[in-house]
Amino acid sequence: MKPAPGGLPRGRYRKEVIVMREVAVIGVGMHPFGRFTDKSIADMSREATVRALEDADVRWKDIQAAYVGHLYQGLVFGQRMLSEIGYSGIPIVNVEGACASGSIAFRECYYGVALGRWDVCLALGAEKMAHGLIPVTGMRPLESAMGYQVFPASYAMIFRRYHELYGLTIEQLAKISVINHNNGCLNPNSKYKLRLTIEDVQNSRVIADPLTMYHCCPNTDGAACVILCAKEKASEYVTGPLVTIAASQLVSNSYETASVLENCVTKRACDLAYEQSGIGPEDLDLIELHDCFTMAEAWHLGNMGVCEIGEEGSLIDSGNIEIGGRIPVNPSGGLLAKGHPVGATGIAQVCEVTWQLRGQAGERQVEGAKTGMTHCHGAQGAACAVHILKR
Amino acid sequence: MKPAPGGLPRGRYRKEVIVMREVAVIGVGMHPFGRFTDKSIADMSREATVRALEDADVRWKDIQAAYVGHLYQGLVFGQRMLSEIGYSGIPIVNVEGACASGSIAFRECYYGVALGRWDVCLALGAEKMAHGLIPVTGMRPLESAMGYQVFPASYAMIFRRYHELYGLTIEQLAKISVINHNNGCLNPNSKYKLRLTIEDVQNSRVIADPLTMYHCCPNTDGAACVILCAKEKASEYVTGPLVTIAASQLVSNSYETASVLENCVTKRACDLAYEQSGIGPEDLDLIELHDCFTMAEAWHLGNMGVCEIGEEGSLIDSGNIEIGGRIPVNPSGGLLAKGHPVGATGIAQVCEVTWQLRGQAGERQVEGAKTGMTHCHGAQGAACAVHILKR
Repeated sequence: MKPAPGGLPRGRYRKEVIVMREVAVIGVGMHPFGRFTDKSIADMSREATVRALEDADVRWKDIQAAYVGHLYQGLVFGQRMLSEIGYSGIPIVNVEGACASGSIAFRECYYGVALGRWDVCLALGAEKMAHGLIPVTGMRPLESAMGYQVFPASYAMIFRRYHELYGLTIEQLAKISVINHNNGCLNPNSKYKLRLTIEDVQNSRVIADPLTMYHCCPNTDGAACVILCAKEKASEYVTGPLVTIAASQLVSNSYETASVLENCVTKRACDLAYEQSGIGPEDLDLIELHDCFTMAEAWHLGNMGVCEIGEEGSLIDSGNIEIGGRIPVNPSGGLLAKGHPVGATGIAQVCEVTWQLRGQAGERQVEGAKTGMTHCHGAQGAACAVHILKR
Repeated sequence: MKPAPGGLPRGRYRKEVIVMREVAVIGVGMHPFGRFTDKSIADMSREATVRALEDADVRWKDIQAAYVGHLYQGLVFGQRMLSEIGYSGIPIVNVEGACASGSIAFRECYYGVALGRWDVCLALGAEKMAHGLIPVTGMRPLESAMGYQVFPASYAMIFRRYHELYGLTIEQLAKISVINHNNGCLNPNSKYKLRLTIEDVQNSRVIADPLTMYHCCPNTDGAACVILCAKEKASEYVTGPLVTIAASQLVSNSYETASVLENCVTKRACDLAYEQSGIGPEDLDLIELHDCFTMAEAWHLGNMGVCEIGEEGSLIDSGNIEIGGRIPVNPSGGLLAKGHPVGATGIAQVCEVTWQLRGQAGERQVEGAKTGMTHCHGAQGAACAVHILKR
């Protein structure tokens, strides 16, 4: 039994003091991200699930519960998708937290196993996305009037503030897009496989000035599935070194108009995860973070403590966030290149970190990676979920 | 610590063998069910939540996590609703399981406290409903062709089968509507306060032959909130006898075209709950069950073991399911009279059972009630959640 994490920072959020079992990721599976007009969401969910079951060498009848993340797929989505695998009668819970939906499904699954509720549990995320800008519901009048009702506008505003305060340039942001697209070229599950230049990024059409198309992640279809098992039982299914979960944190807020510069949910979730795991940002070998826009990646990097706030531009220029650098960020291609099927994104991040920690990431392998972090940021901070995995 | 439940029936679903703390319902609050065109969903959610906090004498800052059930209210609904109370940064998870959404939120909240993840946790359910028949998404062609794409049609078909096999009459079903509406007259939170006769029910307009309007629950707005606390810590907030949770079960299936007569999810969920609690149907003092249609109540009563399957008509005629009878069913008025704001329904059932077990149910009090069961049935069996409470 792992000791309860202690010494969490006190705040308005609460400590979680719990006695937990160690939990291993024993199976991961994805349906590639992209546009698949000839496939149903059920086809994609089934393929991802079957791949995860095969990867774990787990039979469907051994799955004791499932959490399913999605945003747009209608009622009892998880029940409908998993009935494609079989009717086993297990508890299935659909969870939603905007762009963090998949990550929250993974988290609930993790705690279910960690606390002994189940030994083997499945998290599925899947989405078929519409075209165009994602509509945002529930905005308050002031926020709508400021342009917050579409996400690119809010990130354009954040950039302008960072530019004014810290000198972050749009070309530095464009470099993030170049890097993540380069990584996507190495990932068979990535929607885009594009070698871009900073000029290509800047010359793409304007979405929310000064953010152009390649500063924005594409709407994408896709599915991802992860199977978790109590570490003490994992040897029934898999052999070899195990990827385990060292931290799981979720913090919530509403749309944080007032705290753009602090980005408090990312900072709080990461600080809690560092405390929970004893693994700090300097110990991480890679990060899959929520780069829904280039500015989001820069914004989160500072708040994660990967660099000081205000030093994001230098970090981008340094090459340290590229594969081969000190701390590769979004080696999968991230949301910018791989795509962003909302419910699938958080679970796909776990797939990527798992492949990296197992040394199975092919051409995009981060050499010797032993720790990795995932980060999803839903609805402008309404939900931020962070996980640290290790082997 | 409560011992893990043992001896659960083996099936295709899995045993949940867990060591749990006892969990108490320390606060309940509702916004009345009905149509409130002058109120927003945020108004109603806030009122229900504040009432639950006041009932529990818990301050908002003591709430460590929240699960929120809804179906139609858009992204990060729980975060948006609870930010009306305050920004505390706690983990907030939106859960969905069609008509069982609220009940699933309650269940996840319960397990969070039972397993030590939190000491004090909140479950909120709320909905503003559209008018007209609830659209059903994700149906398969065969099921749609059979009429399953609207719920009243499916219950009309179930009635016809019950009539043919067991002689259940439409007048016996109408009696359920009369009873539940009588109960609703005694509940200030009920949408309808109507004294109906069997003739009134039968003479209302046809929805799906032979089910008329008063055989069907109304679409309704409403909100309900429950606060759970580890029993060992409940004395920090409340005094007096505590209502605790004796069983929580969730089973899933897809639309069960093939198993209408077996209604296997209700039977399986109840059997598991009886095993988990050691409380059988003969021990229950009241039941709040998912009477979305009169036929649903009859259907569930047999599958719950309140009577033999085929004996539903006699049970209805006996008076035993009325307040003052052997086992009052839906003393709150149920979905038929109180209304059915989807996400709120399961949590409102817990409110009602809590009031009944505390002896606070006013004119509709079931004398001496010590045990009560709640039952929600989502999307024709895709999710069935059952809880047993006791004092």
